[in-house]
Amino acid sequence: MPYTAPVADFRFLFEHVVDLGQVTSQDRYADATADVIDAILTEAGRVCEEVIAPTRRAGDTDPARLENGVVRTSKGFKEAYAALAEGGWVAVAAGQEHGGMGLPQAMATAVNDMLSAANLSLQLCPLLTQGQIDALEAWGTEELNALYLPKLISGEWTGTMNLTEPQAGSDVGAARAKAEPNGDGSFAVSGQKIYISWGDHDVAENVCHLVLARLPDAAPGTKGLSLFMVPKYIPNEDGSLGPVNDLRVVSLEEKLGLHGSPTAVMEYDGAKGWLVGEEHGGIKAMFTMMNNARLGVGAQGVGVADGAYQHALAYAQDRTQGKSKIEGATGSIVDHADVRRMLASMKADTFAARAIALACGVAIDMSRATGEAEWEARAQLLTPIAKAFGTETGIRVANEGVQVHGGMGFVEETGAAQFLRDVRVTAIYEGTNGIQAMDLVARKMMDGGEAAFALLDEIEAFAETARADMPDLAEPVWQATETLRETVEWLVATEDMNARFAGSMPFLMGFARVLGGYYHLRAAKADPEGSHARLARFYITRLLPEHTGLLAHARGGADDLYAITPDDLAA
Amino acid sequence: MPYTAPVADFRFLFEHVVDLGQVTSQDRYADATADVIDAILTEAGRVCEEVIAPTRRAGDTDPARLENGVVRTSKGFKEAYAALAEGGWVAVAAGQEHGGMGLPQAMATAVNDMLSAANLSLQLCPLLTQGQIDALEAWGTEELNALYLPKLISGEWTGTMNLTEPQAGSDVGAARAKAEPNGDGSFAVSGQKIYISWGDHDVAENVCHLVLARLPDAAPGTKGLSLFMVPKYIPNEDGSLGPVNDLRVVSLEEKLGLHGSPTAVMEYDGAKGWLVGEEHGGIKAMFTMMNNARLGVGAQGVGVADGAYQHALAYAQDRTQGKSKIEGATGSIVDHADVRRMLASMKADTFAARAIALACGVAIDMSRATGEAEWEARAQLLTPIAKAFGTETGIRVANEGVQVHGGMGFVEETGAAQFLRDVRVTAIYEGTNGIQAMDLVARKMMDGGEAAFALLDEIEAFAETARADMPDLAEPVWQATETLRETVEWLVATEDMNARFAGSMPFLMGFARVLGGYYHLRAAKADPEGSHARLARFYITRLLPEHTGLLAHARGGADDLYAITPDDLAA
Repeated sequence: MPYTAPVADFRFLFEHVVDLGQVTSQDRYADATADVIDAILTEAGRVCEEVIAPTRRAGDTDPARLENGVVRTSKGFKEAYAALAEGGWVAVAAGQEHGGMGLPQAMATAVNDMLSAANLSLQLCPLLTQGQIDALEAWGTEELNALYLPKLISGEWTGTMNLTEPQAGSDVGAARAKAEPNGDGSFAVSGQKIYISWGDHDVAENVCHLVLARLPDAAPGTKGLSLFMVPKYIPNEDGSLGPVNDLRVVSLEEKLGLHGSPTAVMEYDGAKGWLVGEEHGGIKAMFTMMNNARLGVGAQGVGVADGAYQHALAYAQDRTQGKSKIEGATGSIVDHADVRRMLASMKADTFAARAIALACGVAIDMSRATGEAEWEARAQLLTPIAKAFGTETGIRVANEGVQVHGGMGFVEETGAAQFLRDVRVTAIYEGTNGIQAMDLVARKMMDGGEAAFALLDEIEAFAETARADMPDLAEPVWQATETLRETVEWLVATEDMNARFAGSMPFLMGFARVLGGYYHLRAAKADPEGSHARLARFYITRLLPEHTGLLAHARGGADDLYAITPDDLAA
Repeated sequence: MPYTAPVADFRFLFEHVVDLGQVTSQDRYADATADVIDAILTEAGRVCEEVIAPTRRAGDTDPARLENGVVRTSKGFKEAYAALAEGGWVAVAAGQEHGGMGLPQAMATAVNDMLSAANLSLQLCPLLTQGQIDALEAWGTEELNALYLPKLISGEWTGTMNLTEPQAGSDVGAARAKAEPNGDGSFAVSGQKIYISWGDHDVAENVCHLVLARLPDAAPGTKGLSLFMVPKYIPNEDGSLGPVNDLRVVSLEEKLGLHGSPTAVMEYDGAKGWLVGEEHGGIKAMFTMMNNARLGVGAQGVGVADGAYQHALAYAQDRTQGKSKIEGATGSIVDHADVRRMLASMKADTFAARAIALACGVAIDMSRATGEAEWEARAQLLTPIAKAFGTETGIRVANEGVQVHGGMGFVEETGAAQFLRDVRVTAIYEGTNGIQAMDLVARKMMDGGEAAFALLDEIEAFAETARADMPDLAEPVWQATETLRETVEWLVATEDMNARFAGSMPFLMGFARVLGGYYHLRAAKADPEGSHARLARFYITRLLPEHTGLLAHARGGADDLYAITPDDLAA
C-alpha cells in the first residue's frame, strides 16, 4: 500500500491549530519562512513516499542480524538511510553552526512523523542521533562538539543512548557501569547495557554511544551517574576514523516487532570515552537527550497511526462486501457503519495525537526562542502527554487497523499486523508510558498546577469565543475542561504521591482526550463547513466523552488500590 | 511461567455469581452433582497445568507447517491432544448418547477457558469439534450421527468449519462453492475455502469438514446455502477409514500469532459430502455451530487474559526495582502504584469477562433444560457480548501484560508477546466483534429490548438488596444500569438500523461494563470482607465509569458519522 505524506494536514495544523506563526516570527527562526516550511514539508514528504516507505516491509521480513560480531541491516536500508542523510533529514532542528537546518522542533516533529509512518525501524536511527545532538549542543565541550556534531548532523555517524542495564530496568539509578580516568582526559568505560537500539549497523561509518556510567568516587543512585561519549571507532582530530574501541555487540534481541532496528546488548570493556556534561551530572545531561526524544517517540506513535490508518482505509475502499443503503454508497465496506466508525475514530485520534505532538514542539521552540519560563513549563507539561498519548494512539489505531482488515489483518502478508507489532515498543521505550504518567502528576505538577491551569484557561477562553458559532462543539469542550480542572485541583491538593500515581495513567489519557477536543475545536472553527468540522464533531460527541471515565479513575486515590494486596492479586 | 488453573475462581463464580445451582437442579443435568463438578474442574485444571501448558511455547516457536501436502503440528501437540481426547475433554457438553459427558455448557465454558490459557493454538482444535458436534446433534441424520458423533466426541476425529471464501469474507451469502448430487445420496462438493483452522493436522486420524455450498437449484445469497459433511478420509460403515477424499490443503497462512494452529486454504474438487440439515438450510445449521462456538471464542479470550495476567503477575512479583514506602511493601514492582493498577485492572476485567461467559453458559443450559423462551432469549442476548467482550478483554489484558514486563515484554523470549499475538484473532474469527455488535443491536433487539430489560431488572433488583450493606458499590451499579436502560430504550426506538450500527460496538462494550459491575457486586456481596469485595470496589469505582463514555458514543446515531464522507476519510 503506498504511503501518502500528510503535507496538507501539517499545513493546516501549523496555520490553524498550533500556531507555528508565533514561532517563525521569532528572530531565532526567522529563516523558517512560509516558503521554506512548505518546501521542507513537501520534499520530506516526497522522500518518505518514494524512498523510505518502499523499505518498510523489508524491515520486517528481512530482520537485522548479527554476523561475526557485526550487524547487517535489512535490504534497502543502507540506500534509504543514505538518502535521509544526503537530504539533511537526520537533524532538521540541529543548529546551523555545525551544519544543521536550525528549523523549529515543530517541523522536526512533522518530519519524524512522516518518517515513522514510512519506516519506523529505520527512523529510529536518526531519532536517536537527534537526541544525541541535543545532548551535545547542551552539554558537550567545544572540542568534542567540533569533532562529533558535523558528522552526526550530516548522518555520516549515528548516535545511541545507553541507559538500561539488565538488573536495573527503568530504575536508571541502579546502573553499575564504571568509568575510570585514563589520565589523558579520557575515561575507560566498562559494563553491560541492554536495549541499545541501532547499537551497531552498516548504514553509516561510525556509531557514537552516549553511556551512563559511574566515576570511581561516585555516590550511589542517579546522582552518581556521569555521561560519556564512547564511539565505535575512535576518531582522529580531523574526523577520520581511527582504531576500533573496546566495545562489542553481545547479541541482538528477538522482538515482537521493529525487526529492522537492531536492538543490541552492548559490552564495554575499558572502552575509551569522553565526559559529556559535568562529573556526576549524567542524569541531567541524559534528560536533555531524553526529553526531546520523548516527543520524538510520541511522533513515532502518530506516524505509525497514520500509516496504519492509510493502510486500513485503502483496504476498506478496495473491499466490497454486502450491500449498504446509505446515500452516496461506494459499494465498499467503508459504507458499513461499524467500519466507518473505526476509520473515523482512527483518523480523529490520529489528528488529536498529532496536534498534541506539534503543540509540544511549538512550546519547545517558543521556550528556546524566548527563554520564557511559561513556555518552558508548557513544553515540560506537554512532553509526557505527547509521548504517552501519541504512542497509545499508535497502538490503538494499529490494532483497529488490523480489525478493519478482518481475517486478512491476522495474515502477515497484508502488512497490517506489522504496524501493531512495530509500534508496540513505543509505549515502553524512552520511559514507559507509566513513567510518563508519573512524571506528569508529580514533577510536572510541582508548580502547583500552574502550567496545567494556564493551558486550561487557554482552552476555555477559546471555547468561549467558539460558543457563538458552534455551541454544540464548544460547550462539551468547555465542560470537559472544567472536569479536567477539578481533577488537576484534586491532584495538586493530594500530597500522598501514591494517591496521584494510582490514577496517573488514566489522568494522562483523560488530559489528552480533553486536549484533543480543544485542537479539534480549533480545526472546526477554521474549517466550519469542511471535513475538519465533521471530524471534530465525531471526536467531540463520541470520543471526548471517554474523559469522564478516565478522570473518575484518576481521582480514585491509592487506598482502594493498595487494599488489593499482593495476596489478593495472586488469589 | 507455570499456569495455575483458577479452579477456586470457578467454584466461587458458580456458587455466588452465576448460580450454576439452578442448572444442576434440572433433571437434564442431574448427573452434574457438586462432587462431579468439583472433580471435573480439578482434573481439567490438572491436565491444563501439567500436560497442556508446557506445550504453549512450542505452538509459537515451532509452527505448524505444510510438508508434501500434509500438515505437521508443533512439537508435543500430538501427545497433548491425545491426553485431551483420552480424558474426554474434547466434548464435555456433548450428549451421553454418543459418549459425551452431557455436562452443562457452563462447565464446558470453564474447561475451554482453562485450555485456552494453557495453549490457545491447541485448544482451537477441540473447540471446533465441539461446534461440529452441536451442529450434528441438532441437524445430522441418525445414520450420519451414529457414524461421526462417537468418533468426534472421543477425539479420534476432529471437526472444522468451512464458511469463508476469498471473495466473500464475512459476507457468507456470497459463497460460490458448489454441491452436485451423486445420485447415491451423497454430493460432489467443489470450491475453495479460506481460514480453515485445523484444516489438516497429524494429531488425530480423520478431519471432518462441515462445508457451506450451493446445490444446483439454489437461490443466491444465504438462503441458497446448504451444509455438507466432507471428511478427509471417507469412513466405512464400521467407522474404519476408507479412501481419501478429493480435497487438499493448498497452503497455510503465515499469521501474526496462533502459529500452532494450522490455518488452511482448502480446495474441494468434487469431494464426497453428505447433507447436514435441510437443503438450502445450511445457514441455519451453521448458526447452531457458530452460536456455541461464539461463546467458546469468548472463553478463549478470557482464558488468554488469565494466562497473560498470571504471566505478568509472576514477572512483577519477581522483579525488584526502586523503592516503595507503602505498608507491607514486598520490594517488587507490584508495590508501584501504576503496576498494581495494571494488575488490578487485568484481574478485575478478567473476572468480569469470565462471569459474563459463564452466565451465558448458564442461560444456554437453562434454555436447553427448561425450553423456556426467556432463557433462550437471555442466551441469545449474552452470546455476542460474551464473545466480543471476552476477546476484547483478552487483547486488552495481554497488551497490558506486555506493558507490565517493560522492555522484556517486547522481547519474544519471555512469552508475554505470544499471548497478545495469539489472542488477536479471537476478535476476528467466528464473526468479527463488529458483527457481534451489529447482531446485538439488531437481531437481539427484535424483541423490543425485552430480554435486555429483563436482565437490567435483575441487576437493579439485586443492587437494591445490596444497597443496605454496601451502598457505595450498589449505587453506582444501579445508576449505570439506568444509563444502560436509557440507551436500550433509545436503541429500540431507533428504526434506522445504521443509526444503531454506528454506535453498536461502544454499546456492546458499555453493556459489558455494566454487566461486569453487576457480577462484581454479586461477588462483593458474597465475600464482603474478602478479596472479591476489594477487587469489586476497584472495578466499580475505576473501570465501571467507562460506561458513560461508551454509552454516549452508542447513542450518537448515524448522521454525524455518515457526514464524514469517503472523501473526508481520504483527505
